[in-house]
Amino acid sequence: MSDPLKIAIAGLGTVGTGTVKILTRHADVLALRCGRPLQITAVSARDRNRDRGIDVAGFDWYDDAVKMAAESDADVIVELIGGSEGPAKALVEAAIANGRHVVTANKALVAHHGTKLAHAAEANGVSLNYEAAVAGGIPIIKAIREGLAGNGLTRVYGILNGTCNYILSQMRESGRGFADVLKEAQEKGYAEADPSFDVGGVDAAHKLAILAAVAFGTEPDFGAVYVEGIENISSHDLEYAERLGFRIKLMGIASRNGDGLLEQRVHPCMVPLGAPIAHVEDVFNAIVCDGDAIDTLMQEGRGAGEGPTASAVVADIADIARGIALPTFAVPAAHLTKAQPRAMADHEGPYYVRMMVLDRPGVLADITAALRDHRISMESVLQTGRDPGEPVPLVMTLHATREANVTAALDQISNSDDVVEPPHLIRIVSL
Amino acid sequence: MSDPLKIAIAGLGTVGTGTVKILTRHADVLALRCGRPLQITAVSARDRNRDRGIDVAGFDWYDDAVKMAAESDADVIVELIGGSEGPAKALVEAAIANGRHVVTANKALVAHHGTKLAHAAEANGVSLNYEAAVAGGIPIIKAIREGLAGNGLTRVYGILNGTCNYILSQMRESGRGFADVLKEAQEKGYAEADPSFDVGGVDAAHKLAILAAVAFGTEPDFGAVYVEGIENISSHDLEYAERLGFRIKLMGIASRNGDGLLEQRVHPCMVPLGAPIAHVEDVFNAIVCDGDAIDTLMQEGRGAGEGPTASAVVADIADIARGIALPTFAVPAAHLTKAQPRAMADHEGPYYVRMMVLDRPGVLADITAALRDHRISMESVLQTGRDPGEPVPLVMTLHATREANVTAALDQISNSDDVVEPPHLIRIVSL
Repeated sequence: MSDPLKIAIAGLGTVGTGTVKILTRHADVLALRCGRPLQITAVSARDRNRDRGIDVAGFDWYDDAVKMAAESDADVIVELIGGSEGPAKALVEAAIANGRHVVTANKALVAHHGTKLAHAAEANGVSLNYEAAVAGGIPIIKAIREGLAGNGLTRVYGILNGTCNYILSQMRESGRGFADVLKEAQEKGYAEADPSFDVGGVDAAHKLAILAAVAFGTEPDFGAVYVEGIENISSHDLEYAERLGFRIKLMGIASRNGDGLLEQRVHPCMVPLGAPIAHVEDVFNAIVCDGDAIDTLMQEGRGAGEGPTASAVVADIADIARGIALPTFAVPAAHLTKAQPRAMADHEGPYYVRMMVLDRPGVLADITAALRDHRISMESVLQTGRDPGEPVPLVMTLHATREANVTAALDQISNSDDVVEPPHLIRIVSL
Repeated sequence: MSDPLKIAIAGLGTVGTGTVKILTRHADVLALRCGRPLQITAVSARDRNRDRGIDVAGFDWYDDAVKMAAESDADVIVELIGGSEGPAKALVEAAIANGRHVVTANKALVAHHGTKLAHAAEANGVSLNYEAAVAGGIPIIKAIREGLAGNGLTRVYGILNGTCNYILSQMRESGRGFADVLKEAQEKGYAEADPSFDVGGVDAAHKLAILAAVAFGTEPDFGAVYVEGIENISSHDLEYAERLGFRIKLMGIASRNGDGLLEQRVHPCMVPLGAPIAHVEDVFNAIVCDGDAIDTLMQEGRGAGEGPTASAVVADIADIARGIALPTFAVPAAHLTKAQPRAMADHEGPYYVRMMVLDRPGVLADITAALRDHRISMESVLQTGRDPGEPVPLVMTLHATREANVTAALDQISNSDDVVEPPHLIRIVSL
């Protein structure tokens, strides 16, 4: 058996602790699987004396993670600090510059600086592995980069944020509102004290930018991702969705069609109940890859938490121990292309629109006239309740249309005195 | 860029043709992804002149595939002939003996001779890759062997045969019988002229034996797989299943618990409707891995057909081109263990039982007495229809029990004059 692979871990929070536990618990079988022992030699965290339920006495301790990345004798630096800038970025750069492989769970870092880091890693002959950055319990980066290598992928999409999926599942099942369910999620530890990255869609957008890069061989382009969160989804929407044969999910969707334009978007979607992904509930994540050889592949698992994320970290370490060395985003950095983004105004698809209108004659005539003016074809309309002269909900579905037209029509509709709240739009996806 | 990887393909049926198409269509991007061109140099098939929709003129032609494996200058031999013995086995052995890597889609070969081939491959320093042998469109071997390397797996199970899943889906949706739907499946090309390997469960059992080996680091042991097909499933069963909150699926299940015994079984299962895998329909396959770090991961995709299977073949070739070399069944062959099988008589679980009984007083008393005699606790009973003195269906579900007890109780029940057909048993799975 070969020499041990020496590992230094920066950050001993939930995932770092989980990684130490797995490497300890499965040390023997991992050595067999990898052909060499995986040995933790150094760790770095903020507080040396905190009780983490693991014994760190046998590892070199570094107060300064960047120093550890540069000076320890580790072959691999595991970055579990987080954040797209600051020490996380500094230590990854230091590790690469010093010829050490990097394993990271840092989605923000890879989404924002992936291209630069990929170039640096390749120039220094080291791996930059980030399986844990996207849907921890689902080995999706490996699936795309290796398992689907024979495919031209056309679309990658999924439920990329467990917090949002939990909130939407609970809202639907209980009929409660967003704020109420978010509070409960925070109490259960499924949502952060500051939930904005999750519920606002930014977390999912980081992951989508990474998936798009590895799927299409493009430079990660977080700035080009259209992002809309779930804050405005009401329990009414969830109810109407079911009546119309849909379930509402926060989805990240990256697609590239014949024209070569790359569409990247994170927003609530009306998903047909017939699609398997509509039934992925609670904190579970799911990712679907559409490819020209496989047709379609869905993977469903836990996206976060100690075990699933640490599992991804350990798999990345095992790959390095086994000598698996691949280009960061599936093709060499020099061959990554800069994709032209498709603007959301040019997005084409069907829509769900909910508005509050005054229940009086002529309202629907005004609305349908606005749709006609923008060449939009209505598929169905649903007015529930009857309350003459008072506001009632009106729900429409629209046939596939260019988004700019829908926006313009809804602007026109908003101007009507009979429409008492701005129309609320949810995109319907065809899967 | 490095030298091309030279590939020889034995067998130009659906999958072989699909492999040539992918390697041709995606030649440029595959070269980028692998760091070297993937070049077909030789092919072998029965009929040189058959029109396959691909141009084979540029490849060396071998009438004898075994000769090609031994004498061509290929780095990789792709075996797509099939069958556990005969030329497929001979050519794989010849390839390995001559220091060539092997990629195969041959589940029977790997299930029956996996241990011996793994030893030979390792002794000769070559890879034996078989992703295409199990659920083509799902990169499950890679997921288990690499993506989940940090897990101790406790159970791997799934819908491993698309033909059976198609038949069961169609039977349920249309209310038609097995023979009728099988005939339709044959006309559509979803079932072979001789369907026994598929509907009898042998095909799924081959795949399960392979999955168990790579998941648990054990020698593949096809002989230890309990196999039962779907021939005796009636549309009544499918109907009762739904009423009881289940869907019937042919599942392959491999599990190993604390006692170290390995249970491998392929049979129709009552799957709770709440489980995602219950909703995998038609020709789709799905595989679930339960592990101590990830909790659970489900993958759903196409298990057969030109594109999905060729996708797996190409991924295996790409791995070789990239220098990824792993032990055949995740740990070195010398470390594979011989698992002690758990006999089905010792299986423990809940059961569904359907029987035809004469509708007269005292029948249920006899049946419940037999259950009591074997210490079996009934969960529910359902007698539909009322036809004094005539046979009517009686359906029971039993709480978790040892299978030997159930078998003995059903034998006792069969002896009653009031039971006009042998009781039909379907195992309920807890997922």
